[in-house]
Amino acid sequence: MAQRLVEQLLHALGDPPVRLQLWNGSSVTTSTQPTLLTLRIANRSTLWRLMTDPEMQFGEAYTDGRIDVVEGDFVRGLAETFRHAAVHESAPGLPARWARARMLMRRNTLRGSRRNIHAHYDLGNDFYRLWLDPTMSYTCAYFAADSMTLHEAQVAKMDHVCRKLRLRAGEEVIEAGCGWGGLALHMAARYGVRVRAFNISAEQIEYARAAAQRAGLATQVEFVHDDYRNITGSADAFASIGMLEHVGVGNYGRFGRVIRRTLRPGGRALVHSIGRDAPRPLNRWMERYIFPGACPPSPAQMSKVFEPAGLSVLDVENLRLHYARTAGCWLAAFERSRGEVERMFDARFVRLWRMYLAGTQAAFLSGDLQLFQVLVAPGRSNEVPLTREHLYRTGPV
Amino acid sequence: MAQRLVEQLLHALGDPPVRLQLWNGSSVTTSTQPTLLTLRIANRSTLWRLMTDPEMQFGEAYTDGRIDVVEGDFVRGLAETFRHAAVHESAPGLPARWARARMLMRRNTLRGSRRNIHAHYDLGNDFYRLWLDPTMSYTCAYFAADSMTLHEAQVAKMDHVCRKLRLRAGEEVIEAGCGWGGLALHMAARYGVRVRAFNISAEQIEYARAAAQRAGLATQVEFVHDDYRNITGSADAFASIGMLEHVGVGNYGRFGRVIRRTLRPGGRALVHSIGRDAPRPLNRWMERYIFPGACPPSPAQMSKVFEPAGLSVLDVENLRLHYARTAGCWLAAFERSRGEVERMFDARFVRLWRMYLAGTQAAFLSGDLQLFQVLVAPGRSNEVPLTREHLYRTGPV
Repeated sequence: MAQRLVEQLLHALGDPPVRLQLWNGSSVTTSTQPTLLTLRIANRSTLWRLMTDPEMQFGEAYTDGRIDVVEGDFVRGLAETFRHAAVHESAPGLPARWARARMLMRRNTLRGSRRNIHAHYDLGNDFYRLWLDPTMSYTCAYFAADSMTLHEAQVAKMDHVCRKLRLRAGEEVIEAGCGWGGLALHMAARYGVRVRAFNISAEQIEYARAAAQRAGLATQVEFVHDDYRNITGSADAFASIGMLEHVGVGNYGRFGRVIRRTLRPGGRALVHSIGRDAPRPLNRWMERYIFPGACPPSPAQMSKVFEPAGLSVLDVENLRLHYARTAGCWLAAFERSRGEVERMFDARFVRLWRMYLAGTQAAFLSGDLQLFQVLVAPGRSNEVPLTREHLYRTGPV
Repeated sequence: MAQRLVEQLLHALGDPPVRLQLWNGSSVTTSTQPTLLTLRIANRSTLWRLMTDPEMQFGEAYTDGRIDVVEGDFVRGLAETFRHAAVHESAPGLPARWARARMLMRRNTLRGSRRNIHAHYDLGNDFYRLWLDPTMSYTCAYFAADSMTLHEAQVAKMDHVCRKLRLRAGEEVIEAGCGWGGLALHMAARYGVRVRAFNISAEQIEYARAAAQRAGLATQVEFVHDDYRNITGSADAFASIGMLEHVGVGNYGRFGRVIRRTLRPGGRALVHSIGRDAPRPLNRWMERYIFPGACPPSPAQMSKVFEPAGLSVLDVENLRLHYARTAGCWLAAFERSRGEVERMFDARFVRLWRMYLAGTQAAFLSGDLQLFQVLVAPGRSNEVPLTREHLYRTGPV
């Protein structure tokens, strides 16, 4: 009986190369491919919950330890499951409607955004320091060369962004959603620009200000503890790396107007965001436990930032596989520090965070998530480069 | 009285740096900038028609000779007028509704497309040969280096497309909308691929087949006189250069499904199209006299090709200023051959075509039109390059 249910579950997921082991020791796979991952299901009620809502209940059960890895590669097994499920899945019906209701509850109003951002980014700088690279970049890195470490790839990402923006010494930059300040400081130190960087995470802003002091850049970089909607003034360049996911599609028009009114003639803006090939809400477990209020947009959804604001799209680059590698580096560093994480939080948190990082890597590997870097300029500006060759020139910028 | 009307007209256009000379010898400008262009208006009725519908009547009057250039740069004057008007214009109301009705009349059904394409592309190969480059490329060139001639830039465009598609010898390519066959033959000759290339223009297909014979490529390249909707079979790469403008937004889903079902695992597709920063129909004069049924899409509109079909956007490049330069080269070559064109057609046709080419160059210069090259792959394919550095490597491909 239970075995029949497991078969049904695996069929519903498109027969991924995964084996499920039951509490009674029996095990089932419906794939003809070699098994990549064997998972143990602790009891009948877990199986039952999985059947009714795998998207939500898999993460719940893994976090509780009611599902565990017996053998195999967790990330590759998840990625293949995502890939098989995507081929199988039908048009979004009920889940999409649930998702809309849920998003209303976590709306990104000025106050709602502060609450949503606090929930994730204020877990403690000491925690993030354990598994992020020394620049504290918590966004997709750019492995310009295969041999790069995560740290090198995060610096390469910053340079890639700065080159796309064609920063010139003496220019002014506004950054929306600056994290721990790594990019703002890099821009100031390496490109000689002045930066005003906005963020609504109190812990991150505090960290960034201290880092600016230590680097002697406090007069060149101003970290502002405020929402992107309150950005005033003008700049030659505008950057937003990994914030759009938190903006909410309903606010895209507003975000676009902020970019447009900020840019001086000849200005450039770069928006870097997790995305989707087609509109679909974030995985529900992820939205509930990791990124409340977040939604990865499709290219057409991202256009709602640019088109009404009169911004011209110059260049879009999809860095999906770079994010898979970035998340893989984070997961490996996290595993090396898991004893310390358990002391900071508890064993359940360790499992929750592993689920998140492994699921993220798997989603980028499987094509479930994308990473779009979009370069734009005011629609009537001819101060745009003719080719992108300058991005790939080696040597000094 | 007439002078007051001219002032009103120039105000409505955002006060471009243009001077209008009236039939009575008086002349008016409302700009404080130096005059770029002085135009003569032949009579009161022409002025009156211009006031009621400048978008349509300017081209009509220029073609008739009721408007003429007295002095200055026609292209730069038009470009500045477009730029000023764009800043001034309000949301599309009535004109957008007219445009919809008009588009229904020139719908791109299988038969409608054949009629629309015939009207423009079957004007005679001898005519196009007068002002296109030797590859007979009638799409945006790529001036990889500033010193390139149009011919070199058209070859560079083909190589840019082939590199984006990462063509490997022995692969199969399907091309939708192949013009006179230049790209298909280049792919076969330089990249060792086999190509099936589709086009509904009878004259172009005939020309392309003869060119394949002459080049000894007839067994490697098959030119098919048929609609993209009738494409069958599969391929490693799919290319469509300058056809999407003619597809019609209502058919984008269908076009996307054709691309998706054509691509084998690991396949890549490139769609190259004139576009807009935001949805707006083609200039009405242009749609009526030059490109019946055509519409340049915005990025969000282009997404209707890719998103429903499960295609992942890997790379978007905007080559707007390359098109301005391309159209400038065409216009210069056209002017050198205008005696011959007048013998082929008549003096009115010369003015009509000059209006079209100058208007096109001005539209790309002013940011009224864009040129998007979009590279996509099936959403679950990981056979995508990590960086775009290979596009900019010099030496053999």
